[in-house]
This record gives sequence, C-alpha cells and structure tokens, in this order.
Amino acid sequence: MAQVTERLAALRASLRETGNDMIALGPGPHMHWLLGFEPHGDERLLLLLITETGIGFVMPALEADSASQHSDLPMHLWSDAEGPDKALTQTLEAVGGTAAKQVVIDEGMRADFALTLLDRLPGAAHVFTESTIGRLRMKKDAAELAALKESAALDDRAMQAAFAALKPGMTEDDLAQVIRDTFAEAGAGPLFTIVGAGGNGAFPHHQTGKTVLQRGDAIVIDIGARLNGAPSDITRMAVLGEPPEGYDEIHAIVEGAVQAAMAVARPGIRAHEIDDAARGHIAAAGYGEYFLHRTGHGLGVEVHEPPYMTASSQTVLEEGMVFSIEPGIYLPDRFGLRLEDIVYLTADGCERLSELSRDVAVVEVAQ
Amino acid sequence: MAQVTERLAALRASLRETGNDMIALGPGPHMHWLLGFEPHGDERLLLLLITETGIGFVMPALEADSASQHSDLPMHLWSDAEGPDKALTQTLEAVGGTAAKQVVIDEGMRADFALTLLDRLPGAAHVFTESTIGRLRMKKDAAELAALKESAALDDRAMQAAFAALKPGMTEDDLAQVIRDTFAEAGAGPLFTIVGAGGNGAFPHHQTGKTVLQRGDAIVIDIGARLNGAPSDITRMAVLGEPPEGYDEIHAIVEGAVQAAMAVARPGIRAHEIDDAARGHIAAAGYGEYFLHRTGHGLGVEVHEPPYMTASSQTVLEEGMVFSIEPGIYLPDRFGLRLEDIVYLTADGCERLSELSRDVAVVEVAQ
Repeated sequence: MAQVTERLAALRASLRETGNDMIALGPGPHMHWLLGFEPHGDERLLLLLITETGIGFVMPALEADSASQHSDLPMHLWSDAEGPDKALTQTLEAVGGTAAKQVVIDEGMRADFALTLLDRLPGAAHVFTESTIGRLRMKKDAAELAALKESAALDDRAMQAAFAALKPGMTEDDLAQVIRDTFAEAGAGPLFTIVGAGGNGAFPHHQTGKTVLQRGDAIVIDIGARLNGAPSDITRMAVLGEPPEGYDEIHAIVEGAVQAAMAVARPGIRAHEIDDAARGHIAAAGYGEYFLHRTGHGLGVEVHEPPYMTASSQTVLEEGMVFSIEPGIYLPDRFGLRLEDIVYLTADGCERLSELSRDVAVVEVAQ
Repeated sequence: MAQVTERLAALRASLRETGNDMIALGPGPHMHWLLGFEPHGDERLLLLLITETGIGFVMPALEADSASQHSDLPMHLWSDAEGPDKALTQTLEAVGGTAAKQVVIDEGMRADFALTLLDRLPGAAHVFTESTIGRLRMKKDAAELAALKESAALDDRAMQAAFAALKPGMTEDDLAQVIRDTFAEAGAGPLFTIVGAGGNGAFPHHQTGKTVLQRGDAIVIDIGARLNGAPSDITRMAVLGEPPEGYDEIHAIVEGAVQAAMAVARPGIRAHEIDDAARGHIAAAGYGEYFLHRTGHGLGVEVHEPPYMTASSQTVLEEGMVFSIEPGIYLPDRFGLRLEDIVYLTADGCERLSELSRDVAVVEVAQ
C-alpha cells in the first residue's frame, strides 16, 4: 500500500505539472505499475479514473469480488444486464471528472474504452501518457531492478538450453519449445520465442514456424519471459556448423554497434544519441540500409515500453532507466543478425543485465 | 485469396448498407478474419483502411517483409526514424478516406491507433463494428465450424486429463499445468486455464494460483486453447471426495438452466431469449442474485466475440452462429458452480461442440 500511495502522489503531481485534469487507465501495464495488480480485462468497460482529488473504477460486476481482494479503491459496478453507462456517469461524478478539459488516455487500452469515455467529455482534449505515468514508469526502483535481473538470469539459462539443444533437422518450433519448457520449469510465463533460421532471420519479427534448421544456417534467437512479474528480452546468434559466407564480418559490425551504444549510454544524454551511436557504426561499415529498426526500447512492466531509442527521440535518459540495445543487420535471402542486451543506467554509465557473451554459439555438426 | 475477395466484398456491402465511408482495423481478430493472417502488433501504428474503392495498410517498415509474405495489399511504410505521420497521410489519400464522414473503428485496437486516425478526420463520426464486420463474423462457414469442432475435441481431452490427474494436495497451478501440457502436446496454444477450488470458484474470473486442492472441494475448471487458429472454451465441475453441502442441488439447478437455454436456441430468436431462459430457471429456483454474468458469448476467431447472450441483447440469432451457454451460481465463501458448452445453431435448433457429459466428475479420495 505504501508503494501505491507514493506512486499515486507522484502521478497526481505529474498531472498538475502537465495541466491535465484526469487520467484514464485500462487494465494493463500502467494500472499494474500503479496498483501492483490489474483486474482481468476483456471487452467489458473497465477504467480507473484519477483526478487531483478523486479516484475510482468503472468495474464490471463480475470482476468486483476478485478486484476487491487486491484493492480497496472505490468501484462503480455494472452488470451485463444493465450495461456500463450508469457506472461511467457515477465514476465521473465521484472523481470530479465530468468537466475535465484535458485528459490523459492510456494509449494501450482498447479503442472502445477510450472513445466511450471521450464521447462523454465533448470538447476535452486528449494526450497520451508520455509526460505523466509514462515518464514515472521509466525510472526503476531497486526492487524493480532486482526482479528484472532475476528474470534476465532465467532468460540466459533458456538461451543456453537452446544452444545445447540445437541440431540440424529440428524445426524452429522445436527449438522454441525447448525455450518455453525452460521458462515453464522456472515458473515463468513465455512472452515470445522468436527463432529465425537462415533467410527467415532477415525478418526482424519473423513468425517462428516449421522451417527445418539446416547445416550452415545462421539462427536468430530472440526470447523473453515474465518471472515474478518482470519481463526479460535477449537476442543471441547461433550457427549450425560453418557460418554462411560473410557472417563473421557482419557479426563483428553488429557487435561494434552494441559496444558503441553502450559506450555513450549514461544519464543526461538523449535517447537518440544511443541510436546515433549504433546506427552510425553500422552506416560507417556500409550496412546502414540493412538496419531496419530502432536501436532499443525500455522494459519494466512491459517488454516494450518507453524510453525508445529512436533516431528522433529527445527523451533525456536518467539513472535507473532500463532499456535494450539491439542493433541488427538484415540481408534478404541470406540471413539476419541481431545482438540484444538489456542495460540499466547507473550514475556514470550502463550495466548489462545478462551475463552471456554476445559471441555466436557455434554448434558442431558432424560431416 | 478467394476467401479474402469474398469477405472483402461482403464487408464493403455492409459499409454501404450502414452508411459508413471507411473502416479501420488494427492487428487483431477482425483483420485475421478478413485476411487470414494478422501482422505482428505492438505500439507501432499499424492500420488497415478500407473504403468502397480503396484498401491499404499503414505499416511499420520492419513488419513489411513479413506481412508481404501473406498479403499483396498496398502498404505505406514508415520507419522508426521518421514516424508514422506521412504514411498515414499517404494511406488516407490512397484509399480515398481523407474526407470520410463516418468511420468504423475496430473497437479492440489500441486507443492511440484509433485516436491518431480520428484526429486526422475532424468532425467525422465513429461507430464500432457491430453492424459491419462484427455481424459478418458471427455466421460461421463450414470450414470454421469444422476447425471449432476439432478444437473442442481437444478441449474435451484436456478436461479428461485434468479429471484423471486431480487429487488432494496439488495446487490449482499444478492442475492448470496438466491441462496446458495436453494442449501443448497437441500443438495447441493455451488461451486460459481457470481452476477455482472451494471458495475461489465463487469468483467467475478467479486467478488460478497456489491454493492447495483439498478433500471436499468443488472445483470449477474453465479451459480453452487455440488449435489451428480455432479457439475452444468449456467449463466443467469436479469434486474431491464428498461434495460440499448443498452441491448436488445447485448442480441440478445450473444443469437445468443450460438445458432451458438449449431448448430455446434456434435461428430467429433474439440473444436475450437465451439469457432469459437460463436466468429465469435460476431465478425461479431462488438463486437469481448469485448468477453474476451473462449467459454466453460468441466464439470463432476470438474466444469472446459477438453475439453476446445478455439480458438486453436484441441481436437476432441466425443459423451458423456459434456461442457459449454457461450459466453459473456463485456462493461466496462456499463454492462456485458453472457449466459451459459451446453450441452452434442449425436450421431448427442447436448442437453442442463438446461430447463430454456435464455431470460433476467425482474423484474418489481415500479416507
């Protein structure tokens, strides 16, 4: 409860500073960060409305008992039979939000939740959470950092299990299952297990499938799970036998980009400087057009959250922020190569969460 | 492709009939139904815009190659460095949507996707998909029905595996793992595995946890998975040894409610008549206040989708619709009891997808 009180006070201060009258959160990561839990979310309208002086839920009746076990905040209930209109009116009145002129909308909530609320506030402007709860969430406290480290250690173990299991003839799905099993044995829920073999690796968000792993494949393995609430995310490379032509050169370039980004990462710089460092290194090597995405993303409650390391981001980085550094080079019809580490900012630089080397894992294959 | 062409034509006809100029879909079930696939969705703006004469994607550049493998629809790309504004403008112009006066919004997309689009269309009205793609999705074709039946058969097997594994001393989580293992072995992805023992069962959406199953517990088991794209959903009851006091009476009432709803289910009635039948039966037995939720929900691409069997729904049911019938009675601090079958409407009635009896599974426990 102490944590909820503290975070709620910080959130209200950020609403004041930014001239917002109300914030509306759906079931999701913002609510989770604030309250330490989130109710079951489905298509039924469920909102937490917060103003300077009020706070309350629009709550589907059938979630009320379960939610009450985690929170004693006021809940305005609605049943499937009556629908949510009256409960929304009651909540807006109770929190003093009926005349709100500028409202912060949880950008990840369902579109109908946001539009149903905004339709009640004609003329009200809306903004997303970047300068309020989004900003607060970027800085991690000691407990959050410890949980992220534990989750990263499990992700390392899952990667090592994948390396140990790798052999020609298995499918991408087979390898993904080895990884998921490692997560499950540790009591973690899998978030994603991207295995991209050979040409598939050239698609950054390849959908892992029935492609059979073959001798000579370079394989992108990008995996993450949620352990005790904390997500993980790591990408490493493996090759089956001899690497494909040109592999070692590209690996060295991407590794150089990771190191360049880590070298500049410290409080006070802007997020785009991380991207500039990695992208500049890859561009200087002549592969700029094959680095298709931003250099990184924050991670904390979600596996992708602010700050984002993009070419245009002016976000000033601060001590306690946690984010990925994950440059890549994607060569169509040949292979893709990405190396990803999660780092956190200390007073004078950054430290990695993972303890795994970024060297390619070479799996020996009999001739 | 033939299916995409057919569904797109039906969707455009529904836009005309309802006076809508454009529909906007995010990555999600509507898009999946229409195109047979959905691109990876995250916080990057990804929209499919469709008008009478145009269709095109606002597409993050790093999803483009992967999406192109599944679709040859026009894609307007944006990179992390430049942001989505220009691509959105281009897409609106290309599909002829810049002057749209009424837009159908995919209610399940992210709030920022919807608001970013609507901010470009000042004065445009928005509606959700109920009378357009939502209506089309409710009626299942033969291939969809066959896939749902296969998925239901697997759900039956998972339930039987749970019954076989049940014993005092295991936790709710342990039992959920048995169920998930059954899904995984069949190549299905788990959707939910709710196990609510004793008093936990009185929360319809209980979060399965570390509660230890004990002799005398009535246990709600509500599980579903996705097999070859098709979801499943079933709820059955088990008791460990002797049932708790009053159990048999309540089971008979809920079973009666299921049968009452099935007896009225046929094309031409309104959805609320299903709810009326089940709720009326439970109310007549004196337990109306303990039936906390609607009687059912559609299932097809999603595990919860229209039509919803609520007290107020005027949706007219048609042949080919598939939905759950799942009345329940929830007695605080005692137990919850829900029985759920998925049915599909035939010309003159309904048939179940499951072949499992709804009788309680009594697990013998040594004295």
